[in-house]
Amino acid sequence: MAKRKKDSFSDFGLGEKSSSEGYRALNKDGSFNIEKINIPFFERLNFFHTLVTMKWSHFFGFIILGYFIVNLFFATIYALIGVENLTGTRGMTPFEQFMEAFFFSAQTITTLGYGRVAPLGLPANIVAATESLLGLLSFALATGLLYGRFSKPVSKIKYSDKAVIAPYHDINGFMFRLINPQKNELLDVEVNVSVSMKRKNSELRDFHILELERDKVRFFPSMWTIVHPIDANSPLFNLDERSYYAKDFEFIVMLKAFDESSGQMVYSRSSYKPEEIEWGQKFVYAAQRLNGKTTIDVSRINESEAAQLN
Amino acid sequence: MAKRKKDSFSDFGLGEKSSSEGYRALNKDGSFNIEKINIPFFERLNFFHTLVTMKWSHFFGFIILGYFIVNLFFATIYALIGVENLTGTRGMTPFEQFMEAFFFSAQTITTLGYGRVAPLGLPANIVAATESLLGLLSFALATGLLYGRFSKPVSKIKYSDKAVIAPYHDINGFMFRLINPQKNELLDVEVNVSVSMKRKNSELRDFHILELERDKVRFFPSMWTIVHPIDANSPLFNLDERSYYAKDFEFIVMLKAFDESSGQMVYSRSSYKPEEIEWGQKFVYAAQRLNGKTTIDVSRINESEAAQLN
Amino acid sequence: MAKRKKDSFSDFGLGEKSSSEGYRALNKDGSFNIEKINIPFFERLNFFHTLVTMKWSHFFGFIILGYFIVNLFFATIYALIGVENLTGTRGMTPFEQFMEAFFFSAQTITTLGYGRVAPLGLPANIVAATESLLGLLSFALATGLLYGRFSKPVSKIKYSDKAVIAPYHDINGFMFRLINPQKNELLDVEVNVSVSMKRKNSELRDFHILELERDKVRFFPSMWTIVHPIDANSPLFNLDERSYYAKDFEFIVMLKAFDESSGQMVYSRSSYKPEEIEWGQKFVYAAQRLNGKTTIDVSRINESEAAQLN
Amino acid sequence: MAKRKKDSFSDFGLGEKSSSEGYRALNKDGSFNIEKINIPFFERLNFFHTLVTMKWSHFFGFIILGYFIVNLFFATIYALIGVENLTGTRGMTPFEQFMEAFFFSAQTITTLGYGRVAPLGLPANIVAATESLLGLLSFALATGLLYGRFSKPVSKIKYSDKAVIAPYHDINGFMFRLINPQKNELLDVEVNVSVSMKRKNSELRDFHILELERDKVRFFPSMWTIVHPIDANSPLFNLDERSYYAKDFEFIVMLKAFDESSGQMVYSRSSYKPEEIEWGQKFVYAAQRLNGKTTIDVSRINESEAAQLN
Repeated sequence: MAKRKKDSFSDFGLGEKSSSEGYRALNKDGSFNIEKINIPFFERLNFFHTLVTMKWSHFFGFIILGYFIVNLFFATIYALIGVENLTGTRGMTPFEQFMEAFFFSAQTITTLGYGRVAPLGLPANIVAATESLLGLLSFALATGLLYGRFSKPVSKIKYSDKAVIAPYHDINGFMFRLINPQKNELLDVEVNVSVSMKRKNSELRDFHILELERDKVRFFPSMWTIVHPIDANSPLFNLDERSYYAKDFEFIVMLKAFDESSGQMVYSRSSYKPEEIEWGQKFVYAAQRLNGKTTIDVSRINESEAAQLN
Repeated sequence: MAKRKKDSFSDFGLGEKSSSEGYRALNKDGSFNIEKINIPFFERLNFFHTLVTMKWSHFFGFIILGYFIVNLFFATIYALIGVENLTGTRGMTPFEQFMEAFFFSAQTITTLGYGRVAPLGLPANIVAATESLLGLLSFALATGLLYGRFSKPVSKIKYSDKAVIAPYHDINGFMFRLINPQKNELLDVEVNVSVSMKRKNSELRDFHILELERDKVRFFPSMWTIVHPIDANSPLFNLDERSYYAKDFEFIVMLKAFDESSGQMVYSRSSYKPEEIEWGQKFVYAAQRLNGKTTIDVSRINESEAAQLN
Repeated sequence: MAKRKKDSFSDFGLGEKSSSEGYRALNKDGSFNIEKINIPFFERLNFFHTLVTMKWSHFFGFIILGYFIVNLFFATIYALIGVENLTGTRGMTPFEQFMEAFFFSAQTITTLGYGRVAPLGLPANIVAATESLLGLLSFALATGLLYGRFSKPVSKIKYSDKAVIAPYHDINGFMFRLINPQKNELLDVEVNVSVSMKRKNSELRDFHILELERDKVRFFPSMWTIVHPIDANSPLFNLDERSYYAKDFEFIVMLKAFDESSGQMVYSRSSYKPEEIEWGQKFVYAAQRLNGKTTIDVSRINESEAAQLN
Repeated sequence: MAKRKKDSFSDFGLGEKSSSEGYRALNKDGSFNIEKINIPFFERLNFFHTLVTMKWSHFFGFIILGYFIVNLFFATIYALIGVENLTGTRGMTPFEQFMEAFFFSAQTITTLGYGRVAPLGLPANIVAATESLLGLLSFALATGLLYGRFSKPVSKIKYSDKAVIAPYHDINGFMFRLINPQKNELLDVEVNVSVSMKRKNSELRDFHILELERDKVRFFPSMWTIVHPIDANSPLFNLDERSYYAKDFEFIVMLKAFDESSGQMVYSRSSYKPEEIEWGQKFVYAAQRLNGKTTIDVSRINESEAAQLN
């Protein structure tokens, strides 16, 4: 039984067969290169999630368009009921009257209620009372959406654009760097790196977890160089740059941390392909003491210099 | 002591005696077939939880009805105080006057306040000031309820309708599939499967955890086939289909994951009964490469083909 | 070193000396019988926590009082500026004018704004604009407070009023029962029981964790009997009822679970003193099959019957 | 491989070289003495986080200033459109008219809408309808910000100002005290203490975790004395006070707990430098029994008395 049981890491649930040619399963921004199709609409639908994760421009477009359409709708109703049921209107032409109804609707749904124009009689009053309730509920929803959008803990972990193969003690190591550019403190940070590679003469791919020099830190106030020492136990042992391409390596990075400012866990993912790995380079030290304070120059995260490999 | 200590899994806290006949303890939708009775009202009551989990139609019905009743209530008070204490009313008949009071109340509780009708004198002003405060608080509550309803992390994990007994390496396995049809990423996904069965010549039921080929994945972007290998250690070892019915098997599935979009843990449950298990079938591969992207056809989650059992 | 290191459980951080006489450290409702004094005001202060945890009656009292006082304050300002700067006032006497100002303030702070009375001139307008902003912010705060009050996950776990010493296999056990009377599902429930007792001829108290037959369940849909088997390893071994009083036992129960409806962890605590323990009683089975559904009679949680101890 | 792998604790990710001279890496208030520079603006930016963590005075200043500027902006637009498009204005001079526009804007953005002044004609109505929508959205944002500010779980753990080297059984110990001065219950509290010290004749610093007498408690209702026994395995073994300065010790404390009132994890950090350590002192017992209740005198957290070291 034991040898059939696999280690608990990600082969993306695709089985070993899925990603057989040279392509990227995990994009650099952490999204997956996998698309689900033929999902029944109501299983896929998640109204709140969609509105919380869409782009800001789309979100505001959605709100403004909605505001316009709803007012158009209610203006039509007021016009059908008859503008004479709205006191104080001064519009003469049908267009002017419709505009009065339109702006009366806007003043009602926002609960602004100037009162220059006000409903008179049962029908207009019923519609106005309904519209103002709808306005309050829509606004309640907007409050929730805005809060949801803003409070969603977003880890903006910055990874070095490239990884390097650099000397490490008396062997070499696979290394990359990361930093949290924001002010929120990340705590209990865990990093996990695995590599996916083509199996020889086969369509299948194998997945290996890479042992790290350190995979967990309690604090993460500065830049952190992740190191996988390429020793005899490493799946990278004795492989040269050409083999990385031949085996179509994909290094998969996953980070998990507690975000102190939101009180929630945040996750971050990235990946490295062979063309993003530099051989015989080592990262340059980016910390400096200035007036008793340590400063980290974030812009130097990708800076490296030549280094003789072991 | 050691042998008396039980493994920590679920027998539903019913003791071993509870579910002795052929019935389902856990429904397919993850709810339990267990009802608690004679709970004192105030221990059972959870106002917020009720309003957050009730159906949308009931929720809006509740709000609209509440809005109507509260306005009726305040309209009555204004009518009792006397409509002459509301300026600008034009109603002649008592009904028209009550309607004026009713819509004035609606304009007050929503803080719309057109002002065509406005309170005059101490009593009407006190009621109106109270009503507008009540309106703001109610609306604050509605905001919270709507946010609570929408932000509640709901895992809509889709399980294959049936499980299969399929060949697995040189033995057979108990298998089913699952997928997350939504766009939110699930991470650190853990699955636990146990089986409950009737004890021979007894009313009691036994519970066993099933060893899985893999019970944890870091990412879950695609379809995942859960496999319990039926080897010599399995409680299913050497049992045929008829025994599954005779022992009245119930397979209980529990899934736990971190939902990246909400930043919270989500749980999902399901179950399989013998009539939902197909023998000598294996699931069909549902992933495909299209233009360098892997696509998963979610609609094929239940698709299987005949397979010779070992 | 090893023998100096203590197990990680609670002696309430009081050191071994604190609770030397017959008294209760943990109340039945889960609160601690410990008071902190001389805390600097600003360290103790937690405005939001206070308003979220105070009783509903106090909370509404606070809001209504605040509403009244703020309006009084602004009415005074408007009166000082001069009621002639509010259009539409009809008050003649100073009292009537102050009332007009008071209700104008209420209409402003709730953003109701009927407009029968409206500010005129710079000073009155500045105050009104300020007041309406203050109103919006106060209301924003009230929204947050109401949401905070309602969404706070409250576990209302119900413990049996008494514990029992009952036969358990060929020995005896210390047992009590618990149930979740509410509809929200509790998952991954962990229970921890420890006992605190007076040391012989000493003021000190010792703390022991009690081994449980089962200390964790995945689901908790029904009633759960917690069992500590009193075997040779138990600190209760060979003790009779009188010793429980002599040693001034306090059984301390702590429960931890994931609340599916709120997506958060919930904790619950309770305790048993010797006078709440019945000897030679066992709990009566409270589950029943009705129309294919298991029903749990919550009202029978305390029901027990005589049982011969081993 | 094994000996190259480091323990998973914090050296601040600076590598061993970073903090080579006598300075403090972690401030007493838990912030880090590390500054990140040259961060691209959009990576650093976190609008919500900034507004949620800024000081209250800055937060209210931001809101009031924003309110003023937005009204100024809209007043200008109304003035450009022409004040004759606002009914009911009484201003004569351009300044008075601009003021009318300004306060009309304030009444619109807060959805107050007295209606003494109201928009007339298409342009003014379009601007007013837009402004009231903007007002609602801004207010929705303010609600979220206020909720975010208040609900953010803030652990105000109070540490003793000094640590002591005190007798502990037959050896000595490094000790400090902590207490939670607030009413919210902290549960499952974990403490971790490490020490950073200069390496001999080197710029490098070493980090060591200190073994604690107890590093975890289930409850934390009172004062807790953290004890590191200085035995033969301790990095502090046989060091005198002068060595603490020579090696430029920094004791780093990290606390992690579940905050029952917010349902979230909270973290707290502090540090001790040699000048904050008193030798041959022990903390005074601060708990007392009063009327059957244990009282903890928080103000005595720093109180210690002379004690003969072993």
